[in-house]
Amino acid sequence: MAFEGAVRRAGAEDAAAVAGLLHDFNIEFDTPSPGPAVLAERLRRLLDPAAANPGGRTTAHLAEDTGGAPLGLALVTWHPNVWYDGPVALVDELYVVPARRGGGVGGALLAAVVDEAERVGAGAIELGADEPDVDALRFYRRHGFVGGFEPGERSFFLQREL
Amino acid sequence: MAFEGAVRRAGAEDAAAVAGLLHDFNIEFDTPSPGPAVLAERLRRLLDPAAANPGGRTTAHLAEDTGGAPLGLALVTWHPNVWYDGPVALVDELYVVPARRGGGVGGALLAAVVDEAERVGAGAIELGADEPDVDALRFYRRHGFVGGFEPGERSFFLQREL
Repeated sequence: MAFEGAVRRAGAEDAAAVAGLLHDFNIEFDTPSPGPAVLAERLRRLLDPAAANPGGRTTAHLAEDTGGAPLGLALVTWHPNVWYDGPVALVDELYVVPARRGGGVGGALLAAVVDEAERVGAGAIELGADEPDVDALRFYRRHGFVGGFEPGERSFFLQREL
Repeated sequence: MAFEGAVRRAGAEDAAAVAGLLHDFNIEFDTPSPGPAVLAERLRRLLDPAAANPGGRTTAHLAEDTGGAPLGLALVTWHPNVWYDGPVALVDELYVVPARRGGGVGGALLAAVVDEAERVGAGAIELGADEPDVDALRFYRRHGFVGGFEPGERSFFLQREL
């Protein structure tokens, strides 16, 4: 499904727009957020290709309507993995504003990530998706992801905060 | 529980030992492996601190018995994340040879990863664990991980190979 608008790679100059979407995302799902200002400051560093990011490379894709208003984003961390020649793309966030869900924005963002992953020779795309987010899980299953669907054969995304 | 031996950071010169353990790991769990030679070649590059790893930083910890024979390893990728000031440690592999399981080797390896994570100011430790690996899931739950244990509140680790 196509949507009226376009997806493009975000640069450091888009940090505020990306931060605003990420903040809205966390507010919607009752997850703590450090606030748009802190997020924007981190993103200016993470999305600057000239900056030294010793931990790895981060990319963001923005979906915008025909007037340039942000509709969603995909935030991806690229890291090496011993099982593949190329990197693995870890989709840290994939978010579409509530009013535009079900209209192809998420699919366009994921397609942009897949294009980028194929361009750089990535071996796989990985992400964590929460069990209550049934729409997200259905979306990823439809787009060829495995690991979260067959009871007894699933993989869990575990975390320990420090 | 302590074990007779020690855990140390592996360097590029340990690539063959790490590759051997990873290969054995995949053979044991019927997962395809590119073979120890290919893994060792990749690890020589990934574990060399002087090498350019554009995708991020990889570390390996080796557990060895008192004679220096490898008993297990932890392979970790460190990547930036917008939700934390510091990096996130993604535990790609944590493996203990079958004969030494249940003897504290895994706990010592995880403790070494936690030490390293605290040293570099990491925000969280993350990993994927398969549903059939009940011993591994119990181990991670005991060590303070969340996300894979309460039905309805779990998070799935999804993957799409390219």
